[in-house]
Amino acid sequence: APQLDGYFKQVDEMAGSFIKRLADAVAIPSVSADPGLRPKVVEMGKFLEKELKALGATVELRELGKQPDHPEVDLPPVILGRYGNDPNKRTILVYGHYDVQPASKEDGWNTDPFALSVDEESGRMYGRGSTDDKGPVLGWINAIEAHQKAGIEFPVNLLMCFEGMEEYGSEGLDDLIKAEADKWFKDADAVCISDNYWLGTEKPCLTYGLRGCSYYKITVSGPGADLHSGVFGGTVTEPMTDLVSLLGTLVDNKGKIKIEGIDDLVAPLTEEEKALFPNIAFTMDDIYESLGSKTTIFNNKEQILMARWRYPSLSIHGIEGAFSGTGAKTVIPACVSGKFSIRTVPNMELEEVDKLVFAHIDREWERLGSNNTLKRELMHAGKWWVASPKHWNFSAASKAVQQVFGTEPDFTREGGSIPVTLTFEQATKKNVLLLPMGSSTDGAHSINEKLDKRNYIEGTKLLGAYLHYVAVEPQV
Amino acid sequence: APQLDGYFKQVDEMAGSFIKRLADAVAIPSVSADPGLRPKVVEMGKFLEKELKALGATVELRELGKQPDHPEVDLPPVILGRYGNDPNKRTILVYGHYDVQPASKEDGWNTDPFALSVDEESGRMYGRGSTDDKGPVLGWINAIEAHQKAGIEFPVNLLMCFEGMEEYGSEGLDDLIKAEADKWFKDADAVCISDNYWLGTEKPCLTYGLRGCSYYKITVSGPGADLHSGVFGGTVTEPMTDLVSLLGTLVDNKGKIKIEGIDDLVAPLTEEEKALFPNIAFTMDDIYESLGSKTTIFNNKEQILMARWRYPSLSIHGIEGAFSGTGAKTVIPACVSGKFSIRTVPNMELEEVDKLVFAHIDREWERLGSNNTLKRELMHAGKWWVASPKHWNFSAASKAVQQVFGTEPDFTREGGSIPVTLTFEQATKKNVLLLPMGSSTDGAHSINEKLDKRNYIEGTKLLGAYLHYVAVEPQV
Ligand SMILES: [Zn+2]
Ligand SMILES: [Zn+2]
Ligand SMILES: [Zn+2]
Ligand SMILES: [Zn+2]
Repeated sequence: APQLDGYFKQVDEMAGSFIKRLADAVAIPSVSADPGLRPKVVEMGKFLEKELKALGATVELRELGKQPDHPEVDLPPVILGRYGNDPNKRTILVYGHYDVQPASKEDGWNTDPFALSVDEESGRMYGRGSTDDKGPVLGWINAIEAHQKAGIEFPVNLLMCFEGMEEYGSEGLDDLIKAEADKWFKDADAVCISDNYWLGTEKPCLTYGLRGCSYYKITVSGPGADLHSGVFGGTVTEPMTDLVSLLGTLVDNKGKIKIEGIDDLVAPLTEEEKALFPNIAFTMDDIYESLGSKTTIFNNKEQILMARWRYPSLSIHGIEGAFSGTGAKTVIPACVSGKFSIRTVPNMELEEVDKLVFAHIDREWERLGSNNTLKRELMHAGKWWVASPKHWNFSAASKAVQQVFGTEPDFTREGGSIPVTLTFEQATKKNVLLLPMGSSTDGAHSINEKLDKRNYIEGTKLLGAYLHYVAVEPQV
Repeated sequence: APQLDGYFKQVDEMAGSFIKRLADAVAIPSVSADPGLRPKVVEMGKFLEKELKALGATVELRELGKQPDHPEVDLPPVILGRYGNDPNKRTILVYGHYDVQPASKEDGWNTDPFALSVDEESGRMYGRGSTDDKGPVLGWINAIEAHQKAGIEFPVNLLMCFEGMEEYGSEGLDDLIKAEADKWFKDADAVCISDNYWLGTEKPCLTYGLRGCSYYKITVSGPGADLHSGVFGGTVTEPMTDLVSLLGTLVDNKGKIKIEGIDDLVAPLTEEEKALFPNIAFTMDDIYESLGSKTTIFNNKEQILMARWRYPSLSIHGIEGAFSGTGAKTVIPACVSGKFSIRTVPNMELEEVDKLVFAHIDREWERLGSNNTLKRELMHAGKWWVASPKHWNFSAASKAVQQVFGTEPDFTREGGSIPVTLTFEQATKKNVLLLPMGSSTDGAHSINEKLDKRNYIEGTKLLGAYLHYVAVEPQV
């Protein structure tokens, strides 16, 4: 096993300067959703460029052109980095993002969101981007620096891809990844992404699966314009009545999807898979806390985790075109669109899902016998992703977790999608590992986002340790 | 029968100055919904005061205090007028409003909404408030002036009540009407309101009924905050699923209210009532045109008019708290409120309706077996109103229509509510007549609101003629 004591000691010694680095990064309000703050996003990219170059890395900034929905501003550049060029070493490609969600004190933050505030007692470091995703991105830079300072040879060639539009749809990134697959990313032997979270607060995890998402819109229209319910109520076929009927046929409140044939597409649960769930560090109290209520469908963690990770779900998100304000408006909306999405899992073929959804809606529409007009469409679809947790990329990371945290990680999946995962897998044809730094309570997109000092410093150790293990892990 | 030729001739001669008066009124943007325009509303009230005083009427302005939801501004005054004080004459109380709906050129108006634009060829006079309700209010003033100029004795004592907040909920009016019932309004023998519209464009009508409206809100809540459907889809009982199920039990797309017991409250259709419908000047093309589509529930005018006037209806207006924007947001809303209302008709007791609605919702909620929380409430209720069309107030108006337009009026009801009607009836205990001036195509609350010159000038004749007939019509 790799000897890491020197590296760990160095990281501990540099903890203060690593926190200073995070504070410097958090101070740049790189909010990608706000075109007015675009210069700050670019400034943040240049900050990374400077840090990396100071450590001797090669850095190139890839421009992505104008922002499609705001053609007056340029997209922020993707930062491509390379540290090390030794053909005898493995090459690991890591991804992160340097943009952040919007934040302002008025939203209810206890501190200035763009000034890292360290609570020494709890070890919590509050600030927008602390955990999502500046902390993890800086973790890689910290790891390089600690190796240099400690005089320890860096174990791999490190390829880096840091983008600045993740919180606004990763505009332009897919094309860049495809274009660089046989250029900047050509040597990559495996991929590691640090942009998700531990399942709880104590135990690290390695993530090997994500659900997909197919998002649908069904529109019912009739009258030429919105009508007054006093004048027209009772005389016109109301689009809302039709739409509510249709939406009511999709799912029941026990989570059962009522679209014929959907369940048949789901990979059966194997005994081996089933055996993974009881050991996972997760309790019903964890989910009650994150929900803020006890209104779960199941009352045991195995079913909850399976429902979240390995079974599909259908959620009705809302209705566009109907009255949605406060107060009491007596309108008959002329054209209403119901939005719902299905979280997809292996082995659901997305085209097959669409076919079943549309067939179901058409059948129910027929049944309604309405003289209104129906339109149904797929708004967007992202595929599910599952990697092999037995791959050497994962077993190396598992050993690194054991060395840093003294415990085996949980092997987890997630209910949501991180589309870039699938893009990297498809473009590089390499195994992709999700190696989170932050914990479940960090509140990535909420007010008072934080990263625990322990997660940041031990996390920096973990990223370095992972690189040492992945450098030597035998291929299975 | 009253001799009215002199009066009619005088009105024709003064047509130009009456249109000038309307233009002066339209030029004052008395938008009650905009607190910033409150001085203009007050200016419009003072305009009426000045016109009435110039004709020798007694006028008092009743202040109503601060606007509850905008305590920084005063409510506009109610203009109380009296013209004539002859104990040997009948006293008629008329109501109208001098405020208008918001309007701006950018909404799509072809002309400046606050500059009356007269199309000489079509006779259409475009401008905000032309038909709703400045034209009718000025009609009463025109009638007084024409009598004076022609040297004809005014046939009744006229009490006037003109308010300035009608388009924003008639804030403060109910209390004022009740307070003045045995003061300013004490002598009233009958009430006439001119603030609705002909059923079509050719034939005047007298309106003797309005539906009521009971507006409900049902709220389903569970999680402590909105959730991400990727993380929580499949594990939590989604409030939207429950709400959509509940809303789906209320009404079908043929207009049938599925709340047990509601239909039993509706007064049975008598043969006499049924016989009224075939003669009414109304066609399916009229409704297709006003709908902008052919998506009606019925395909004959009798059923359409009955559904609009004498049967209840239930409309689902929308959902508060769900995703209602464009785009594709993957949210599980934590708390959603469905809004629906029932248009009520004789003999539905409103308390009984509430009881049936709540019992139905509770029963369906029980059936859902949800662990979410339900709250249901009545947001507001206005009672239906029906007057006797055989009352001397109506027969006088009918004769006036015959004399001015050479045709018998249609006796109509309306699907919507005009709450002040019921307030006047209950406060004065007198018969209330709705005597519209404008026609169905005026577009009261839309862009390009207009009043036809014919409706305004013949309408001024009608208001005067009505006063002559109502002065002498024998009590039945
Ligand atoms: Zn992120
Ligand atoms: Zn994020
Ligand atoms: Zn009006
Ligand atoms: Zn109005």
